[in-house]
Amino acid sequence: MNSFGRIFRVSIFGESHGQAIGVVIDGCPAGIGLGGDDFAEDLARRRGGGPGATTRREIDAPLIQSGVFEGKTTGSPIAVLFENHDIRSEDYDRLRHVPRPGHADFAAHRRYGGFRDHRGGGHFSGRLTAALVAAGVVAKKLIPPIRIRAWLEQAGGRRDIEEAIRETAGQGDSIGGLIACQAENMPIGLGEPFFDSLESLVSHAMFAIPGIKAVEFGAGFKAAEMRGSEFNDAFADASGRTKTNHAGGINGGLSNGNNLSFRVAMRPPSSIRKPQRSFDIRTGQEAELSIDGRHDACIAMRAPVIVEAATAIVLADLLLVERALRPSAEQESVG
Amino acid sequence: MNSFGRIFRVSIFGESHGQAIGVVIDGCPAGIGLGGDDFAEDLARRRGGGPGATTRREIDAPLIQSGVFEGKTTGSPIAVLFENHDIRSEDYDRLRHVPRPGHADFAAHRRYGGFRDHRGGGHFSGRLTAALVAAGVVAKKLIPPIRIRAWLEQAGGRRDIEEAIRETAGQGDSIGGLIACQAENMPIGLGEPFFDSLESLVSHAMFAIPGIKAVEFGAGFKAAEMRGSEFNDAFADASGRTKTNHAGGINGGLSNGNNLSFRVAMRPPSSIRKPQRSFDIRTGQEAELSIDGRHDACIAMRAPVIVEAATAIVLADLLLVERALRPSAEQESVG
Amino acid sequence: MNSFGRIFRVSIFGESHGQAIGVVIDGCPAGIGLGGDDFAEDLARRRGGGPGATTRREIDAPLIQSGVFEGKTTGSPIAVLFENHDIRSEDYDRLRHVPRPGHADFAAHRRYGGFRDHRGGGHFSGRLTAALVAAGVVAKKLIPPIRIRAWLEQAGGRRDIEEAIRETAGQGDSIGGLIACQAENMPIGLGEPFFDSLESLVSHAMFAIPGIKAVEFGAGFKAAEMRGSEFNDAFADASGRTKTNHAGGINGGLSNGNNLSFRVAMRPPSSIRKPQRSFDIRTGQEAELSIDGRHDACIAMRAPVIVEAATAIVLADLLLVERALRPSAEQESVG
Amino acid sequence: MNSFGRIFRVSIFGESHGQAIGVVIDGCPAGIGLGGDDFAEDLARRRGGGPGATTRREIDAPLIQSGVFEGKTTGSPIAVLFENHDIRSEDYDRLRHVPRPGHADFAAHRRYGGFRDHRGGGHFSGRLTAALVAAGVVAKKLIPPIRIRAWLEQAGGRRDIEEAIRETAGQGDSIGGLIACQAENMPIGLGEPFFDSLESLVSHAMFAIPGIKAVEFGAGFKAAEMRGSEFNDAFADASGRTKTNHAGGINGGLSNGNNLSFRVAMRPPSSIRKPQRSFDIRTGQEAELSIDGRHDACIAMRAPVIVEAATAIVLADLLLVERALRPSAEQESVG
Repeated sequence: MNSFGRIFRVSIFGESHGQAIGVVIDGCPAGIGLGGDDFAEDLARRRGGGPGATTRREIDAPLIQSGVFEGKTTGSPIAVLFENHDIRSEDYDRLRHVPRPGHADFAAHRRYGGFRDHRGGGHFSGRLTAALVAAGVVAKKLIPPIRIRAWLEQAGGRRDIEEAIRETAGQGDSIGGLIACQAENMPIGLGEPFFDSLESLVSHAMFAIPGIKAVEFGAGFKAAEMRGSEFNDAFADASGRTKTNHAGGINGGLSNGNNLSFRVAMRPPSSIRKPQRSFDIRTGQEAELSIDGRHDACIAMRAPVIVEAATAIVLADLLLVERALRPSAEQESVG
Repeated sequence: MNSFGRIFRVSIFGESHGQAIGVVIDGCPAGIGLGGDDFAEDLARRRGGGPGATTRREIDAPLIQSGVFEGKTTGSPIAVLFENHDIRSEDYDRLRHVPRPGHADFAAHRRYGGFRDHRGGGHFSGRLTAALVAAGVVAKKLIPPIRIRAWLEQAGGRRDIEEAIRETAGQGDSIGGLIACQAENMPIGLGEPFFDSLESLVSHAMFAIPGIKAVEFGAGFKAAEMRGSEFNDAFADASGRTKTNHAGGINGGLSNGNNLSFRVAMRPPSSIRKPQRSFDIRTGQEAELSIDGRHDACIAMRAPVIVEAATAIVLADLLLVERALRPSAEQESVG
Repeated sequence: MNSFGRIFRVSIFGESHGQAIGVVIDGCPAGIGLGGDDFAEDLARRRGGGPGATTRREIDAPLIQSGVFEGKTTGSPIAVLFENHDIRSEDYDRLRHVPRPGHADFAAHRRYGGFRDHRGGGHFSGRLTAALVAAGVVAKKLIPPIRIRAWLEQAGGRRDIEEAIRETAGQGDSIGGLIACQAENMPIGLGEPFFDSLESLVSHAMFAIPGIKAVEFGAGFKAAEMRGSEFNDAFADASGRTKTNHAGGINGGLSNGNNLSFRVAMRPPSSIRKPQRSFDIRTGQEAELSIDGRHDACIAMRAPVIVEAATAIVLADLLLVERALRPSAEQESVG
Repeated sequence: MNSFGRIFRVSIFGESHGQAIGVVIDGCPAGIGLGGDDFAEDLARRRGGGPGATTRREIDAPLIQSGVFEGKTTGSPIAVLFENHDIRSEDYDRLRHVPRPGHADFAAHRRYGGFRDHRGGGHFSGRLTAALVAAGVVAKKLIPPIRIRAWLEQAGGRRDIEEAIRETAGQGDSIGGLIACQAENMPIGLGEPFFDSLESLVSHAMFAIPGIKAVEFGAGFKAAEMRGSEFNDAFADASGRTKTNHAGGINGGLSNGNNLSFRVAMRPPSSIRKPQRSFDIRTGQEAELSIDGRHDACIAMRAPVIVEAATAIVLADLLLVERALRPSAEQESVG
């Protein structure tokens, strides 16, 4: 399904070179101030620019179709459209039959029996993350005092990030990145043990972002090498605040009031100018690809705001579920 | 929610020291052979034993309550119970008011307003993974020719795993572990782009296993350091088989026919004999804990079969969804 | 699916002559007093007795497996079992291959490819309504000040109900019934426009009760014959209370604060002693049936408490959803 | 939620006088031919006209935003928009504070804390049924050989329907209607026992249509007055075909291969020219209403195609679920 959430429920649709992409947000409470301007900052962060960035330039004007009246949410579903304008579908003519290594082209062709829209990656395009960001803008209005911040820590394993990207782009190649995310002022008790653990929901949302291949909470993979006496976060005091945060703010699937803290790894974009070998899916014959479309050398540069959005969507939903189930719950952050 | 899956839907319930734990499996096709004996092997793998293992010894006899008639599934919900027998609740009397560092005790106390069942961790107990394993046994019957295998690669960062655990247990401490999982003979096209990507669903299920703190697919965190020209898996031939598997068998959220391949990190168990500082939640006063109950020094040892079960649950559900949506899809593995 | 509800979620399982039937209730808040005795009254109402009643006598002892500790709900899933004891499966030997007219036998045989449990109707048995009633008992604890009451208005179109049933039973026949239900002290605004209208959810739950074939709200079918000037319920005052209740307490899918009011029709039980013609599904040859098992002549007699339970399940869920979405909503009844 | 369906999932959004209304259809298989023209016939039937009809004239041009490429569905979500053009919001200025008797105005005002869009009924408008009809057009492509047909049987209890409406409209009043629906060539086994019975799902969808207040299957309310020996549909032969259809084609929640057959009652529209008493929600003071906007005297006239659409949505989803769960099921109609 292209939907996510139990109360605050987000559905996305659209293709890169179709009429429009969009998002429908169901389960947003009434009375939240919302206008086109609210989307500007986060959409600008997603749009990116800088070294090695795509030259596709969409205006990304969010067109609110429903759910807002006189500047406030009405409680009815909020639909936001982004029309597609700056399209150069001819760049993709060749890719129709020659799948890019590392891309969804081949699997999508087989999954949809050849009916997929190949232009610009179709529904698999990173362009749909604009819809995620838009939903995140709405979600972020529901979560205060929680505050989410994500940032790019490394690109290609290097901390001189802009330089690393410039070099790679110059060589017709692409590069991965490592993104960290923190949510402060977390209440205690968001999430469920087992299937809807906070880790389950956050990771579910993270892996909805194209290109993410790994997620770790707190100490993450290091936890596998640690002993209980090291890993267990000692309480600083009776508020539940801990001296360390190896658990990433989650015990037993529930937020524990400390910062939610996790990292995600994003693979390098699959579309590169460097020649790669592939084949023609009609004939099976080998073919060489050198991809000249407008592509980012490091998509991870644009991803922190998408990571924030996906996190906000999860937390907004859990806060609403919490309200339903725990009327008199004490919700205090210890952060 | 304590449920997961769209067609093949698994719900678990129970507490460590309650009457019983159990699982309800809805959406299993009729006509699958199923009897009590089918559960024996996987339950034995989960039960563990060996160095540093808990001395709690549940018989783990799966009591099939419904959904099976004359040795075959009927298409109606399958309920399986495991009664709790070998209970020593008195071990937990002190823990009622003194939360274990690193454990869900504190967050659960706050979340449920003090009404949680503290005995043996209550609903948060690892004992509920027996229910997951039982669901996995049913799921594994639906997925052939797919074959799933998980194994413990390291404990505490060491490959001499039994020795590492023995040492740690001797010191009254516990230790984490790293588990790898592979699924062979994967069809092409399982999963969805975005919210129900194969990575989203597998990670969702993995983080439902208590103690898992990180998941990576294929090259995983290494992907953040790689270039596209390295990371992109080159096609070996027109079947879609690739020479490398940095993508872990997934592109654009869809299985690509190569092996599904991922790793998870499990933190060390929080209950250790070594003294730790905590506090009394009634008074806020400091308290020292040295946990003498029956606990594993390395829960990761027992986890591979649980990882397999969670993976099988995801794949069984996706195969049923695939059948619904892609009647004439070509489903060939390239593995 | 055998599940229903968004937050307060009920799943049922079991077969008439299997090990046990049961229910799992997820999404119940913590701290609600609950014990075995709470179920006694409603289960006794369902058990029935009186003229034309089945002689199957199950003790109907609710076995709480999980989710309750020291007499209060813990917030974890509540599982309740009812073991099957008073079974006479041999009564059903002949029915295995000869479908009863008016019964699910034939469709179930085809749906499940012959793997269904035919004994006592298997999963299709009215016995599973004990599980619904048990869930209703929990739901009724969440809805005050709302109070639900259902009653049998007519049997076979007659108001001398007991006499009508006695006559019919004496003739080896069965008889249908008309049940009315009212919920008082309704808040304003439960339900959604369109897909989750209050009518949609109540009717969905009603038709989950075996044998119900019609549902009408307020004036119901009469509404088709009325004019707007008659049908529109005039406001009695500014509280929203209306002078009439043709709408059954629902406008635009939302409760309007007046009594929720509806009627359901229950068909006569299909199992009758009077000879009926059928056929053998193995050979297609004609066969005559005279059903001697233990069956009710008027199942509608036992249904009011089931109608109440199904209504309570819907309202409990909607009240929790309402809490999530409308923190500051004015919720006043006008009834 | 404004969504419905398990695999074939329909979400609607929009307000009567907002930018646009629309529908997103997730879970539609790839390769189905679909273009703007496919919607014309059903949208024209919904648009209506004739005696007592509204004079609002929307062009109702379906704008396909996504999910279709080169005239075929791609397997990705299909979004269809209908822009709002022929708007006269000033007609509603007075209604902002004076709720119409029989309308959602009052309950919606209370539910959404006053933030609802009152213009043209906002999200509660019958205009959103254009979105339902659009989803029905897609669903109808998935269900052959099933064929659905709905028709208006009576208006105001009369069979001279046009005349009845003309009279009522002339008097500034409105009138209800009775609609019958049949689906032919039904497979055996669609639906589930209990919560997802075919009756549950069809009634759920029916009550999503504004104004429907009653649903009955087969003999419906008459069933309450019948005896088993009358009601039980005798088998005509070993195919499962029955001589009568009192069950409406459903036994035990499953389709039995005979025609699905049901009736719904639609109340008269609440907006009438005849003066009615109401009150101002700001002051509580009495107010008289005579509604002069563009309204239908008998909305039931336009409803048959909406009833068909809602039925098709249910059946399309159930057929996909059936495919998932019953690979080798015999699916023969007996109709």
